[in-house]
Order: sequence, then structure tokens, then C-alpha cells
Amino acid sequence: MGFTPRGFLGDKPAKAPPLFPFLLTFLLVGSRGDSNAMDNVSTERLAEESHRQDSANLLIFITLLTLTILTIWLFKHRRFRFLHETGLAMIYGVLVGVILRFGVHVPQNMSDVILGCAVNNSPATLLVNVSGRFYEYTLKGEVGRGKGHQVQDDEMLRKVTFDPEVFFNILLPPIIFHAGYSLKRRHFFRNIGSILAYAFVGTVISCFVIGLIMYGFVSFMKAVGQLGGDFFFTDCLFFGAIVSATDPVTVLAIFNELKVDVDLYALLFGESVLNDAVAIVLSSVLLRLEKQGRRGAGAVSSPGDGGPVWPQGEEGWLAENQTFAPRSIVAYQPAGDNSHSFEAMAMLKSFGVFLGVFSGSFALGVATGFMTALVTKFTKLRDFPLLETALFFLMSWSTFLLAEACGFTGVVAVLFCGITQAHYTFNNLSPDSQDRTKQLFELLNFLAENFIFSYMGLTLFSFQSHVFNPLFIFGAFLAVFLGRAANIYPLSFLLNLGRKNKIGSKFQHVMMFAGLRGAMTFALSIRDTATYARQMMFSTTLLIVFFTVWICGGGTTPMLSFMSIPVGVDSDQDSPNSAVLDGSQRRDTKHESAWPFRIWYNFDHNYLKPLLTHSGPPLTATLPTCCGPLARCLTSPQAYENEGRLFDDDSDSILNDATVSSMYADVTVSTDASGRTVNRSSGTRGLSDDCVDHDLALAEHEVAIRGTRLVLPVDDPVEPPTTVTLPSPPSPPGSEPRRQRL
Amino acid sequence: MGFTPRGFLGDKPAKAPPLFPFLLTFLLVGSRGDSNAMDNVSTERLAEESHRQDSANLLIFITLLTLTILTIWLFKHRRFRFLHETGLAMIYGVLVGVILRFGVHVPQNMSDVILGCAVNNSPATLLVNVSGRFYEYTLKGEVGRGKGHQVQDDEMLRKVTFDPEVFFNILLPPIIFHAGYSLKRRHFFRNIGSILAYAFVGTVISCFVIGLIMYGFVSFMKAVGQLGGDFFFTDCLFFGAIVSATDPVTVLAIFNELKVDVDLYALLFGESVLNDAVAIVLSSVLLRLEKQGRRGAGAVSSPGDGGPVWPQGEEGWLAENQTFAPRSIVAYQPAGDNSHSFEAMAMLKSFGVFLGVFSGSFALGVATGFMTALVTKFTKLRDFPLLETALFFLMSWSTFLLAEACGFTGVVAVLFCGITQAHYTFNNLSPDSQDRTKQLFELLNFLAENFIFSYMGLTLFSFQSHVFNPLFIFGAFLAVFLGRAANIYPLSFLLNLGRKNKIGSKFQHVMMFAGLRGAMTFALSIRDTATYARQMMFSTTLLIVFFTVWICGGGTTPMLSFMSIPVGVDSDQDSPNSAVLDGSQRRDTKHESAWPFRIWYNFDHNYLKPLLTHSGPPLTATLPTCCGPLARCLTSPQAYENEGRLFDDDSDSILNDATVSSMYADVTVSTDASGRTVNRSSGTRGLSDDCVDHDLALAEHEVAIRGTRLVLPVDDPVEPPTTVTLPSPPSPPGSEPRRQRL
Repeated sequence: MGFTPRGFLGDKPAKAPPLFPFLLTFLLVGSRGDSNAMDNVSTERLAEESHRQDSANLLIFITLLTLTILTIWLFKHRRFRFLHETGLAMIYGVLVGVILRFGVHVPQNMSDVILGCAVNNSPATLLVNVSGRFYEYTLKGEVGRGKGHQVQDDEMLRKVTFDPEVFFNILLPPIIFHAGYSLKRRHFFRNIGSILAYAFVGTVISCFVIGLIMYGFVSFMKAVGQLGGDFFFTDCLFFGAIVSATDPVTVLAIFNELKVDVDLYALLFGESVLNDAVAIVLSSVLLRLEKQGRRGAGAVSSPGDGGPVWPQGEEGWLAENQTFAPRSIVAYQPAGDNSHSFEAMAMLKSFGVFLGVFSGSFALGVATGFMTALVTKFTKLRDFPLLETALFFLMSWSTFLLAEACGFTGVVAVLFCGITQAHYTFNNLSPDSQDRTKQLFELLNFLAENFIFSYMGLTLFSFQSHVFNPLFIFGAFLAVFLGRAANIYPLSFLLNLGRKNKIGSKFQHVMMFAGLRGAMTFALSIRDTATYARQMMFSTTLLIVFFTVWICGGGTTPMLSFMSIPVGVDSDQDSPNSAVLDGSQRRDTKHESAWPFRIWYNFDHNYLKPLLTHSGPPLTATLPTCCGPLARCLTSPQAYENEGRLFDDDSDSILNDATVSSMYADVTVSTDASGRTVNRSSGTRGLSDDCVDHDLALAEHEVAIRGTRLVLPVDDPVEPPTTVTLPSPPSPPGSEPRRQRL
Repeated sequence: MGFTPRGFLGDKPAKAPPLFPFLLTFLLVGSRGDSNAMDNVSTERLAEESHRQDSANLLIFITLLTLTILTIWLFKHRRFRFLHETGLAMIYGVLVGVILRFGVHVPQNMSDVILGCAVNNSPATLLVNVSGRFYEYTLKGEVGRGKGHQVQDDEMLRKVTFDPEVFFNILLPPIIFHAGYSLKRRHFFRNIGSILAYAFVGTVISCFVIGLIMYGFVSFMKAVGQLGGDFFFTDCLFFGAIVSATDPVTVLAIFNELKVDVDLYALLFGESVLNDAVAIVLSSVLLRLEKQGRRGAGAVSSPGDGGPVWPQGEEGWLAENQTFAPRSIVAYQPAGDNSHSFEAMAMLKSFGVFLGVFSGSFALGVATGFMTALVTKFTKLRDFPLLETALFFLMSWSTFLLAEACGFTGVVAVLFCGITQAHYTFNNLSPDSQDRTKQLFELLNFLAENFIFSYMGLTLFSFQSHVFNPLFIFGAFLAVFLGRAANIYPLSFLLNLGRKNKIGSKFQHVMMFAGLRGAMTFALSIRDTATYARQMMFSTTLLIVFFTVWICGGGTTPMLSFMSIPVGVDSDQDSPNSAVLDGSQRRDTKHESAWPFRIWYNFDHNYLKPLLTHSGPPLTATLPTCCGPLARCLTSPQAYENEGRLFDDDSDSILNDATVSSMYADVTVSTDASGRTVNRSSGTRGLSDDCVDHDLALAEHEVAIRGTRLVLPVDDPVEPPTTVTLPSPPSPPGSEPRRQRL
């Protein structure tokens, strides 16, 4: 472990060797020296073999997931609560990892060729001229030194290793989108101030506290000679950033099942969803910073500085490599100090980058959400749920791609896209599509999540460059604990100064305890495991995730009962804690919120909702008269029609009233919501559930018959209509039925 | 075009050059010669850039799909029938292809490196030692000669080109699974004999007719000097195999919408689904055969035979390649004759392989289906629809992977898995999961299908080695037409000898006309485009697909009205043509079928259904008494309970009776089904639709409360119970409500 396989992060070699002519060395790893064997194993056989191997590997994961599902069922069925499904997936992953590591020895397939060439760059695409035929190779990434050495043994392990980008580009987006899409917006918006504080300020605090503590530990380790490689201050901060992302999955699933206090739930959920976004942006900014620092430092370091850090006991595997140039390995060796060129200026700059990336991603996500809402509003795609669902899925996915293509953070964009989709687009969808999208993303989320956790378990044994340093691990656990404490307690104290509905000390303890680390932390840490520091971070992070998921996740139920926090609270009712906020005082919620949010509420209700959905007051009523024609164009005919229908028949006024009230309750703009809002709406729900489906079907047929053209009645714009009926009461993505209409 | 870039199919070089030491040549394509530029473009920048580019490319496709969806909606909305959505997707694809080809010129990114080395093998994984760091490269495939030459211009085009395996491994499985899952099994099984005849015998006939005609054309082309490369008889047969796969998508979607005669629909659908499977296996067997032939031929050919077939006008791009060895290029050059070592022995052997692969895939697919059915039957996963859906999805997917890992054909396995799942597992699922799985696969199918058709359109311009040969294209169109005719008309004549319900000549014309080529043909032909013959095939296939989808697909509605074939037939009613088969004669269907099918029906009803689902007679009644304990273990308690419930209350006997009847109608084992089966069941449907949901909910709760243990009543085995009630009448994957229960 005495070497630092740098690269991959783009350290520039001090000087470029001449490109033409050059000498290439070439060695076959594990080739048994007989060329006949090589001949017989023809390309397409290898490709076939490789394809089969890939299928078998994927099959391992599918089997793992299947097992997990069956065991989850058993646990749910028997009402075991001490272990969540994610913890279970991890256990299965660990088991398979152990089997693959110690049980299976696949004969090495003699096909790995090491090409050594003096070119100082690894291109993304390589065309190899093999005796006149050209083969295209794509860069998969750098492999560790040890790996080249162990290829023989670790073929199987290497095969089950996924490209880390898979996590970021395929598995995380559905998870994050689902989090946004199923957000309980009423409670979320009520606590938005606190959530933002925890997520932004708290995560930054946590990141720096952890970073500083780790820096102390690392310095100590260096002093006592426990550190086997470089570890810079930016590395410490990076570590702080990645382990500050709490996981919205595990504990919250338990909370949801147990029906814990809704405000506590909203705080935890909101925080953990948003701090994922913060952590991603923070870590990518730090990474960028570090690269720049490294590049700068690389320029001033002399090639011989520190000597070629070359694995001492491992020359054997390179015996045939004649032209090895150890220079670029040490191209970056910091010039003496360990601060890694971390300066105030860079700090400020990175803060700017942070804001830019975050707001850019935010804007992009919201913009795509708006576009989807407009498209679903102004076409009658509702008639074809399949098309609608497909469009919804594609638009949501394109957010991610668009953000990545623009250089923003796709995952963050997808989160806000999800929130926007749930807030606006969801209301435009046909009931069928509402179910479909909800179920689709639920399924994708479930599969992706369990896959990640299985893989995590597997990685504990299949990853080949683990660096477990007891001191570092101890430090990390301490730092994570203190970082979480420094996030929750001081912020809660400050927030309680402004909150009417205080966050009790018990709740603070629960929030402290529930700071699990999960998929996001894992994905961030596996993204780059090229350096010693990163490997140590990865191994430690893995342990932190395991510990929190198993111990904290499993301990949640005992913890709650120990804290005597009431469970079984109906999420639609207010919690005992916030019971003062009953219907008659609901309008206080609005006043309770800070003025920016009040402005936002009004703006949303008066302009965005009518513009983007079929509900809300017609724009003709809310926009100034000068915008009359535009307002008429943009207002959905249903806004008028619903109004008219409401005035026409009073028979179903109870349902309408209740629905309207709950709509108002949702966004807390209760211009005319009666005092009995909550009771009434929850009372009506049981009654209306039976007939909803038939109503929906009728409403949908009506829509289908009505045709696509925007029928613009020439009525005068009426007074701000506070009563609108729902043509198709949706059941929302989360578990709150029919509350998203406003 | 005077060269034959072989390889990739594994031709063995005549003699292996010594491996060590060797000389490597190395040239940078398009490098502007200044090494500074190379230095600055660091690896991670490139990776980032590449990632962005990939995102942008994927975004193009998503945008295409989004556009397609919107236009489809417009078309459906306006009731345009002349162009199906797939044709539309192709048009959009073509437009984007044109833009990419002629409009966009992305500056080439200087990152492609050509490594030339004298090793006579292209390994699957390449480790490149770049100045001491090791990078892993994975084989992407062989690139055409022209490609290396044009890298500068075609960067963008190359980027939007997917790995052909993507089609086979990602896009086709959901399409095929959906086809199997949504198969209307009643009509399918009623016509199973004819369908099998068309699919197996017909496809083989078509393959050989097309192959022979093409061989004639190719020989003629060779004679008049129109052929620019090699084209062997196996190539012709391969072409016959790939264009014999008719597409179950386009016309059938139209047929389904128009509600054409159900038997015609079943014949077309069944044939096109099954002949996909036949074509896959046939083509892969031919490929294997060809490889062996080529290998054998390669061994006897002298290196100089025919002279090095080397592009004459293109030496420029290889000017720096010093050690080019043209030997292996011509390693396979057939020894004079063009028959490509196609012999009777090989023919017979390949028939054996065909049977082996087909039956293996079939068995695997059915086995996984059985396993899923057993798992869903004996666990109470129904209580958790999410888990159930996830399990269903994973098990279905694992079929594909398992088959591929075993060396069978995944797509074929997935087809039969889909049929089995629909026939058994579907009945065990909770109503919620039934909807979910149906909708999920519908969505996946829709997306995959439209993606493939968009990509097809794009490929027309983005594919870089098109070989459009007018004579060959003319021959191909003629051959496809004749091949289809040779399939349909003679077989229909023969089948009509045995069929009571004759296939009219009008129907035959429609079947002839509706032989569209689609996704499968495309996927099969793009799988390998390395040789001249394959490229010509690919280009021609593309044109055939375009023609059939646009002309035949668009012309279906006029064709039907021209033929005066009645539309608007209720798929649950019998068609006018088969109106003789009304309820009272339904049991004749059984006798009408050949005895193997009768045996199968009885076996299925008496043993498989009770074993794999909750319906059917208890196994205790159907199995011999010696198997009593086993039968009691395997019989679902619901089978007894339902029985008991039926005897208990007579109030809902009409519904029960109808349901039972429709069950019997489904599999046509009508031991006690009354004469009024069809009328009654369709009469009850409208009535029962309203209360089904509530019933289901009740039934489900009951199940949830009852717990998991199999409660085994100690009743004596009753007489073969022909009356069972449905605890939860499912709505099936297709459009036939509640017919799958048996």
C-alpha cells in the first residue's frame, strides 16, 4: 500500500515525451506462452463468452434482488421491524461477496493484454490495428496497480464490478425523482424554512466539522506513521461532503409505516432529500477545486520529488514491461505542505460555483417540469394514458440528461423536476396515468434502491483496493457523529427561536439518530477510487453506511418507543404536537411562514397553478386586464366550466366543498376555507372513496368527448373564484389522497 | 468497396506470427501533431466531455420519442390511420439522421489513437500501460476500414450509433415479453395448429425461398460484375432468415383498433410472434454454420489466393502504419466455389442445433414461468403489490439472462416465459399487481418499440457503410414477396384441408399483405455489419422495413375496406366467420383441435392449473389417491374454500356460473359449461364490473387476515369439482377481461 496510483483525475505529466517515434511494450498477462491457445480462442468466441459471463453476473444480482424481495415479504408478513429491506439487501450482498471472493475461482481467460506505450494520455477511444483489422476499444477507467497483478485471481470479482457511473446515471435518478415526486408537499412547505436550514446550512456545517475533525485525525495519523499515502485537506472536506448526505430511504420507510408525527417526518424527509442535492454539488465543487489544486501543484513539483512511489514488492508482474516510465506517477506530489493549496480565494470561488451549479440545476429541473405541465395541459393526451405516461417518463428523464449535457448536476435537476411534476403536472394527468406514473416510479425506486444496497454489500468483499485503517475509521465515526450533532442541535435551537411549532428535544434526538447514510453516500464515494485517500474514504464510508443502516435503521423502533414518541398518527390529521394548528387556525400557517413563502404561495395560487394546470382561478381573473387576451389563451376552459358546474348543481356540494377545502389546506391559502376543513375533508374521504372511480371515469369520458380545441367562453372574467371542482380527483403520488389539487 | 473487411466473425489467421518480440505501430488519427494540445486535454476532461456528449446524444433520442408521442396523439386524436406511430417514429428518425449527416459538423476531438500491433487476436479487455498508469479498455467491436478513414467527419455519427447488442439485450426482450404476455390465449390456442404451421414450416419455407432467389440474383450480379464483394449461399440463407421475421407490431395495432376478425388477428399475431423466435434461432444457427464453414475454408485457402483484397484508393490513411500485415484479411477466401461449404450433413446438423436451441429456450422460459407461478402461489406476496410486481419483473428478466448465460436464445425464452406468466402467474397476482405488470410492460414495450423505429430512421443516414445495390434491392423485394406468398398460400391450402373453420382467400390476401418487417428484422441485420455482404443486407433490410411499415402498414385500412373485410367485431364475441362456433357448439372446439392439444388441455386443466394457481379443481381430486399427501400440500386452500363458498351461498350463483363458464370457455374444456356460456358471461360482465373492485378488496382482506400457513382441511377429496369461484377476478394483460382463470 505504499504507492499512490494517481491519474484518472487528470494530473498532467510534467513534460510530454516525444510522441513519434516511440517504443511500445506489450505483455500478455497470464498468457501461458503458447500461441496456439491464443489462436484458437477467436474473437467471437471471446465475445460470446464475455456476453455469457455478463449475463451470469447480472443474474447474480437479479437472484439477490429476488431473494431480498421474498425475505422482505417474510419480514413484513411477520412484522419484523428490526431490519429494513435495505439492510437485508446488504446482508445478501455481503454473503454473495464472500462466496465470490473465497469460494469461486474462475479460470482466468487469457485474454487480457497489456499494451504499454509511451503516450502520455489515455484517449477515450482506442483503435487497435490488429494485423490489419481495426478494433475499437473504449476507455473503461484506470485500474489499480494491484489489480494488474491479481487479474488472474480476480477476474470474477472484476466482472461483478459495475462502472461507478452506472450508479450516478442510471440508479440514482429514479430514486431521487421518486423522492421529489412522492414528497408530501403540505407538510414539506409548512416546514420549508427549517428544512432549508437543515439541508443547506446544516450540511455545510456538517461537511466542515467532519472535514476539520478528519484533518486532525489524518495529521495525527501522519505523525504516528499510520498513513500509507497522501491525504489532503480537500480530501477531508470531500469526505465530509459525501458522508453528510443522509439517506431518505431507510428510517423514513419505517417512519411512514409507523406513522410517526408528520412534522418530524417532513423535517427528516425534506432534509435528507435536499441534502443529497447539496452534498452532490458540494462534493463536485470540491473535486473541481482539488483538480485545479493538483494541477497547479503538479506544475511546481519536480519529477524526483519524494522519489518514485512504486510498489516495492510487486515488480514481478511488470518484469516484462521494459519501458516503464515512473515519472508521471509522481507528477503530482504536493510541494511540502499538506494544505493542498486550499485558500480563501478558492473557497470563495467554489462557493460561487456551488451556487451556480445548484441554481442552474434547480432552474433546469423546474423548467422541464413546467414544460411537461404545459404540454399535458394543452394537449388532450389524457385520453391515451399510455402516451401520457410515456411522455411524463421521457420528459422527466430528459431533465437528467439535459442537466448533464449542460454541465449541471442531473440528480439535483431531477429532484426539483420531480417536485414540480408532482405539484403541477400530476394534476393534469388522467387518473390512470396518475396511478401509472406513481407505480412506475415506485417500482423503479424500489429496484434501484435494493440494487444499490445489494451492491454495497457485495462491494465489501469484491472491491479490491480496500484500505481499512482502524484509526481513520474511528475518527470517521466520531466525526460523523459530531458533524450530525453540530448540524441538528445548534440549528434546532436557532430555528426554535423563530418557530411557533417548536422542534422538541426528543425530536432533535430522533433527527440526530436518524441521520442514516445510504445510496447517495455510496455513489459519491465509489465514483472515484483511484487514489489511496479515496480508497480509504470508500472503505470507511462503506462501514459507516453498514453501521447506520443496520444499527440506526434497526434501532429506530426501539428508539421511538424509548423516547415515547407517539406512533400511529394519521398523516392527514395533524400530529398531537401541532394539534394547535387545527382547521380554524389553519390560515395562521400562512402568516406563520416567512413573507417570501407567503409571496410564493400567492404567486403559485394566482398565476402558476392556473397557468400550468386546469385548477385554480382563471388567469383572466388574476392577471391585470391589460393581459386579457393572453390570459384567455392560457386559461384552461375547465377552469370556467368547473366554475359553472359548481354554480349549477348543489347536490354534490359537500364533496366539492371538502375537496376545495383540502386544496386550500394544502397550500394554506385559505381565502374562504371554512374552519372545519380538516375534519370535513377527512370525513368525506371515507365516504367518497367508493364513488370516486366511477366519477373519474365519467369525468374522463366527458373530457374525451369534449375534443381538443380550447373552447373560450366569452363570459366576463368573474371575481376571484375560490370554489373550483375537480373534474378528476387524483390520488397523489405519495400516500395523501387528493390533496395536491392546488 | 473492393475489399472485404472480415474478422469479427472469428476467421483464424492462417499462421500465427511470433508473439514476442513484436513491433507495434502507432498512429494518431487526426492529431494535429502538436503535443501540447494533447497534454492539455487531460483524461478527466475527455471523460467529462464524452459523458456530456453521450447525454446530449441520448437527449436527441428522447426528444425524438417525445415528438413522436405528441404526433401520435395528434394522429390518434384526429383519427388519421394512414400512418402508424412506428412509421412516424421512423420519419422523425430519418429527419434527425439527415440533420446529423449533413447539418452538424462537430470538430473532431483528437482523442482517437490507432494502435497497430502484430498480435493476431483482439482481446476482450485491453490494459494499456500509458507511461506507467494502466487503463482498461473494453472491446467495442471491429470498425470498418472506411471508418478509420473518416473518423474526422463522422465523430458525431459514430457517437449516435448504439452497440447492436443493445437492441438484442435491452430493447427486444420487453417487446417480446409483452407480445407473449398480452397474447389472447383463447383464440391463440384455438388456432394453435395453423399458427405453428405458419410460424415454423412457413418461416423455413420463406427463408429458403428467399435464400434461393437471392442466390440466383447474387450469381447473376456476379456474372454481370455488379457485386463488389463476396456473397455466399449461407449469406443468402441468412438474409432469408432475417427478413422472414414478420413484425407483430404495426398492422396488429391497427387490427386491434379496428377490431378485425379475431381468428385472423390470432393467426397473424401468433404467427408473427412465433416466427420472430424461429427467425432468431434460424439465423443464429446459420451464423454458426457459416463460421464453421469459414473457419474450415480459411484453413485450406492459401494466403495469396485471390490476392490481398486491399482497398486500392485508400492507402493514405495507413501511410504511417509500418508493419501492416495484409495476410489475415484474406485468411478466408473460399477455394473457388461460391457454395460456401454448404452441405447436406451440415444442414442436418444445423437442424438438430435448431431444435436443441429452440426447445432449450422454450423449456427455460416455461420453467421460469412455472417458478414464478409457484412462488406467487405459495407466498402471500399479494398483500404487497410493489413486491409482487418487482418479483414478477425480475423473474421475467432473469429468464432472458439465464437463457443467454446457458447459451440459449434469450428472446425466445422470454416469449414463452411471457405466455406462461400470463397463463398461470397472472392469476395468482393481486388485482393491483395485475394492472401494474400489464401497464409496466405496455410502457416498456411502447418505449422500446418506438425507440427502435426512431433509430431505424436515423440509421438510414447515420450508418456509414451502406451498400445500396439496386439490383440486389430489387431482388430482395421480389424475394420477400415470393417468400411470403410461398409461405401463406400453399400452407393455407393445406391447413384448410384439416380446418373446419376455413381460412378464406380474403384472409389469405390480408395475411400476405400484412407481412410487415420490423424491429426483429432490424435487430437481426444490424447485429453484424462487418462484411460487405452483411452491409448490403443491412441496407436492403432497412429499405424493406421502411417500405413495409410505410406502404403496407399505411395501406392496411384501405386494404381491409377494399377486401370488404368486416371491422368492428367485438373480440369477445365470435367473428361472423366463426359464428358457427356459438356457445352450444363450443365443446366442439376441443374436438376440432388435434388430439395432442386435447391431451394438453386436459393435462393443463387437471394438473397444471391446480398446481400453479389457486383455481381449477383441487389436485386431491385429479391426482391418483397414492399421491394424496403431496396433492394436499400443493393444492391451494382457496381451491377448497372457493368450493365451499359456492355451495354455501347461492345468491351470487349467476356471477359464479358466468365466471366459471368463461373460464371453461377460455380453455375449451367444458365438462359442465352450459350452452349459453358466451352470451351469459358477456352479459354478466357489464353487470359485474361495478362490484368487482369491492369484491376484490374484500377478498384480498380476507387473504391478508388468513395468514400464510396452508390451512389444509381434512375433508375427503370431493368429486372433480367443476365449479370454482374466483376470489379475485383478474383483468387480464390483454383486453379480454376475466378469461384467464383456468
